[in-house]
This record gives sequence, structure tokens and C-alpha cells, in this order.
Amino acid sequence: MNAHGPESFMRRALRLASRARERTWPNPMVGAVVVRDGRIVGEGYHHRAGGPHAEVLAIEAAGSAARGADLYVTLEPCHCHGKTGPCTNIVLEAGIRRVFVGTSDPNPRERGRSLRLLRLAGVEVIDGVLEQECRQLNRVYNVFIRHRRPYVLVKVASSLDGRIAARTGDSRWISSKAARTYAHRLRARCQAVMVGAGTVRADDPALDVRHVRGKNPAVAIIDSRLEIRPSARLFKLRRGAPVYVYTSKRTPAGKARLIEQLGAEVIRVPSRAGRIELGHVLSDLFQKGVYRLLVEGGSRIIGSLVEGRLADRFEIVYGGCFLGSDAIPMLGWNGVERVASAPKLENVVCRRLGRDVLVAGDAVYTGRE
Amino acid sequence: MNAHGPESFMRRALRLASRARERTWPNPMVGAVVVRDGRIVGEGYHHRAGGPHAEVLAIEAAGSAARGADLYVTLEPCHCHGKTGPCTNIVLEAGIRRVFVGTSDPNPRERGRSLRLLRLAGVEVIDGVLEQECRQLNRVYNVFIRHRRPYVLVKVASSLDGRIAARTGDSRWISSKAARTYAHRLRARCQAVMVGAGTVRADDPALDVRHVRGKNPAVAIIDSRLEIRPSARLFKLRRGAPVYVYTSKRTPAGKARLIEQLGAEVIRVPSRAGRIELGHVLSDLFQKGVYRLLVEGGSRIIGSLVEGRLADRFEIVYGGCFLGSDAIPMLGWNGVERVASAPKLENVVCRRLGRDVLVAGDAVYTGRE
Repeated sequence: MNAHGPESFMRRALRLASRARERTWPNPMVGAVVVRDGRIVGEGYHHRAGGPHAEVLAIEAAGSAARGADLYVTLEPCHCHGKTGPCTNIVLEAGIRRVFVGTSDPNPRERGRSLRLLRLAGVEVIDGVLEQECRQLNRVYNVFIRHRRPYVLVKVASSLDGRIAARTGDSRWISSKAARTYAHRLRARCQAVMVGAGTVRADDPALDVRHVRGKNPAVAIIDSRLEIRPSARLFKLRRGAPVYVYTSKRTPAGKARLIEQLGAEVIRVPSRAGRIELGHVLSDLFQKGVYRLLVEGGSRIIGSLVEGRLADRFEIVYGGCFLGSDAIPMLGWNGVERVASAPKLENVVCRRLGRDVLVAGDAVYTGRE
Repeated sequence: MNAHGPESFMRRALRLASRARERTWPNPMVGAVVVRDGRIVGEGYHHRAGGPHAEVLAIEAAGSAARGADLYVTLEPCHCHGKTGPCTNIVLEAGIRRVFVGTSDPNPRERGRSLRLLRLAGVEVIDGVLEQECRQLNRVYNVFIRHRRPYVLVKVASSLDGRIAARTGDSRWISSKAARTYAHRLRARCQAVMVGAGTVRADDPALDVRHVRGKNPAVAIIDSRLEIRPSARLFKLRRGAPVYVYTSKRTPAGKARLIEQLGAEVIRVPSRAGRIELGHVLSDLFQKGVYRLLVEGGSRIIGSLVEGRLADRFEIVYGGCFLGSDAIPMLGWNGVERVASAPKLENVVCRRLGRDVLVAGDAVYTGRE
């Protein structure tokens, strides 16, 4: 690879973009550089929603040097009149000669429009430069734009044989202290944590971030028959974040009132065969401002998410033990007939986490059986 | 740590010992250094069975400098008249002042005897220097000395949720090509590979080492009712290594003769509740010269080995897929009631293996339920 080739400039733009990590919502992270005669003459990135776009800042920084120069931008420039005006116009007015684009707009209705506009206006457009990295950067935003639901991150503490609890329900401790601190770190990065009523009953978790700095996330409990105990720790802790309990439409009003008196919000959503439809839950959470959701179990919820193709990423912590075939499976979902059509993880990474092993990756759903 | 402290000299002895890896059988690997005034004046390691012991070589190399010097040896010196005479005598005759020992003799009947002898003779003995590393070095030998059976290494290709095949039995391909090459490398280091009849039926494996350099291992098939097909590839390949088929004592002679005509040896061993008792199989394999056995499945065999506390090490290759709760579990063994009493892995390592993740460690069986 040429050290001064298109990829190196795009990599610089990516680095700039990621400076605003967690701060641009509900906008994507974007970075841009203006290059003239093989040298960067202007840089910029989108700092926060409402602020100027990356390409505008980069072109402004380049000043008159932008005329005849190349623009590198991690995401297809916008062409609609938003808060800052269409970037395509600014590119044209500045006299940019070539535009290198990382990835196209994730919105299927907008995808490629700006690139066509620029080409029509005589600008040379090269797209797909470091495409995977550029798309990966905004994977949370991309889920929002395409599906109008939160990005779903599933965190599991599992035995080496894929079990989240012994057959008795005992799960203390499959993973080590280091792994639990790591879970708190994940929580602090999400607006809400989701668990099933079974997990609340078995573990009585606090679902807070006490081992790290950060804000406690909201809690979403899936409880089709509203069997959660009013004595659960969750209701007693002053978490400073709401507790949502999702239940079926058939749950008696009296039961719901009892839980609401504890300060939680009870939300009725459709269910099928006794299982809450998680798609509805995700939509509701999204409307409540949750764009990154951490799911911590149990088995049935994780299984339903995989079956419904709703899990976007897995972070699996394997504790170094074997629990046997009667133990509770990681996924309460009957599964596939062929390995080839199984849900898969991509971009898999692994590392030690205390005495455990962390395996993480992005979920992809390809084959249909 | 002092760069010239006892641990650094023991580490040198360990490095020397491991030069003879795979070549000392049925003896352990041993390394020794003689140190005088903080400098190494003699080194040695056990090259092969029948050859001189490490401490003898190190003391010989030191010559007269051994008098009043320190001896570092990874394993407790022998005191019985073997092929090379007792090392304790040689240590005393050389006038060694202090002996630093890594680990004591793994044979419970011999453990510590030499150290007591040396102490009685006025030599200062410091034991347990880098004890874990020194014991780890000879873990195959230690199993042989204590249990008179092969060291059992279990290799599994598993989905992320701990399944070795989809519910249909399909397992192509949970793991990638890189993982399969790795399996061949493990095979080349073992004298035999063990699989169940079910695995032979489902996968019709060659169990050879064609992807790497090395000798094909013997094959041990566990087949309580002798249902293996005479058309299995195993019988057709000129593997240059024996095929052993272990079956129950009740298997009809006619069936056995059919398999024997294919060049395999049929061995009848006790069974219980329709399952071959693997302890007997291991003893028999050991008598046939197998001191390192690779077990490649299936579920029932791995489960029985864990239940019987006979698996010494696991190498688990996780392919990046989920197969669901109806899929075939890694361990056909009902499991434990409490996480605290689960079989565990120690010294866990993890790394990428192609697009898969390898997790490996040494099995430990502690709690009883």
C-alpha cells in the first residue's frame, strides 16, 4: 500500500471522525480531509449534532487551496437542506476536483444520490475507499437509520460449553470479577439494559455501573405475565434512571398498578405464544431515546433476538468451566438444520479478561433455511 | 525479581530441559545447571531414555568447579539404581553445597525421598522453585506415572454456543481450514486419535495428518455395539498405523470378525449401561504404547471423559456461529448442580486461528457435589 495513497488519507479522516465518538448522536460520525499535491491542506470532523459537517470544516480550513484539490470523506456528503445546508453545494462551490468516499448513505432512499449529483456536475467520485471500516464506524447509527430501533449488543457470561447457568439455575460465578467490571463498562455506554424476568428472579441484579464511572442505564424488563417480585433490588435502588417493565396485553391491571407504584413504567406490547414480541419493545425503547441497548439475558430473550435477527453484536465472556448438557443454554432458540445457514459473527476478536476469555463480533444473518 | 536469582537459573534449566521435547519418553524432560559465585559453570539436560541424567551432565561439565557450588534441577533427582546410577550419590560425591529443585517426583511413593536423603547428608535443599512451570513441563509424563494411562487431549470444534453439530448432525464447517490444519498438527503429536462410532458414521473422517508433516496416529474407535460400517474410509486408507475398535463384551463374534478382516483389531472391554468404560480403553491404549491421546469426539465420549475426570487438556476451536439449543452439545454429560463444583480449565490461553478462536487449557477437577 502506498503510504500516501487514498487509503492513508481516508484513514486520517476515520481517525478524525472517531474523535467525536458517542457525541454526535443522532448524527453519524464523519471525518474529512482536503488533499492537494499529496499534502493535507484542510481537516475536519463532525463534532456534535447541530454543528457544521466534516466536509464543510475541512474545506473551510483549506481556504483557497481547496480549488482543484481532492476531498476525502468517510460518509457520502448530504445533499438535502439540513441545519447546515447541503454539503454537495459546498463541495461544488469550493471547486473540489475529486471526491473519495468511504461509504454511501446507509438510508436506502438516499444511498448514492449525492454521488450521482456530484458526478453530474463534473466532479470525479471514487467510492468504497476503506468501505468496511467507514461503515463499521457508524454501525449504531446505521441500525437506527435502517430499522428505527436501538443497536442491540448482547453480553453473555457463558461456560466453555455454552451454558449461562447450571441446571439448578446457579450461575455464581461463571465469570470473574474482571468480567463483571467489563460488563459495567458496557452498561455505562448504553442508554438501557434489558433482562428477562427470569434473570431478575434468579440473580436479583442491580444492573448498575458501580464498578466504573458513568451513568446508570435505564432498565427494561421483559415479563410477559408480570411475575417480577415487588421486592426486587431493582426497585429499591435509587438508580436515577427509569425502569420499564414490558408485559403482555393480557396482564391484569391490578398487577400492573402494583409495579407502577414502585416507580416503574409498565408497557403492554403484543405477545405470541406467551412470548413478548421483542421488535415492539425495541421500537418503544427507541422512542424513549435508547439507541444503544445492552441485553444481559436470559436464554429465551437472547434466543428470541437471534431468531428475530435483532442482535447486532455479541460480547461473550467464557468462564473456564464446563456445566454439562442439562445446564441452561446460551440461546433459548431451537436453532438451524445446517451450519451453513447459522447466524454468524464477523470481525471476531478475542482476548483474556482476567481469568476468562472474551470473544466479540458483529452478528450477520445470511442463509435462510 | 533478581535477574540472577534462583528463578532465573531455574528458568535456564527449564529451557534446557525442553530441548528434548518429545524425545525422552518414557522418561521425563529434565534440565540442570551448576552455579558458582552467581555464574553458570555447568549445564545439562536429559536427551533421551537410556542417556545420562541432566544433573550428571551438568556436574560433569562443571568439573572441579562443582565443589561447593549450587545445583538447579527442574525435577527431584533420582535415588534408585537405574541405568545411570542414583543421581543423589553423584550430587554428594561432587560436593554440591545447595540443591534448588523445581518439582518433586510425581510418583507418590517416591516423592521427596531424594530430598530427604540429600538433607540428611548435609546438603541444603530449596524446593518449589518455579514449581508450576516445572510440573507443567512434564504433564504428559506425570499422568503416566500416576495413572498408567495416556495423557488425554480433547480437541473440539464448537459453535459459540457450545455445539459440535446442528440438530441434524451437520457440522460442515463449524471451523475453518486453518483450524483443521491445526487439528492435523495436534494429531501428528499424538500416538493415537480416539473418536466414537457416531462421529465415524456422521463425518467418515480420515483422521490423518495430510495437511502437515508427520506420522499418522493410530485410530481408536469406541463402538459399543460394533455398528461401524466396513465401508468407512478409515479402513480403506493406507494409513500405516493400526486401527483399534473397542466394543462391549457382548458384541457377537461374527461382527467382530468382519471388522478384523479389514485389518483392524477388535478389543472387548467392560461396558456399563451401554457405554464402554473408557478407563479400560485408556489402559489398553497405554499398554499399546500410546502415551498421548487426542480425542476428537463425539459428544458422548467427551462427556464420559469429563465425568470420569479423564480429560487432561482441552483445545476448543470456536467457529463464529450459533447453532441453537436443539443442536448437539459439546459434552454428552448431564453436568453439575453448582458452578463452584464444575470441571474447570486452568492456564487458559486464547488466540485467533484463521477466522476462528482457539481456547485451550488444562483440566482440573476439584469440588465434589
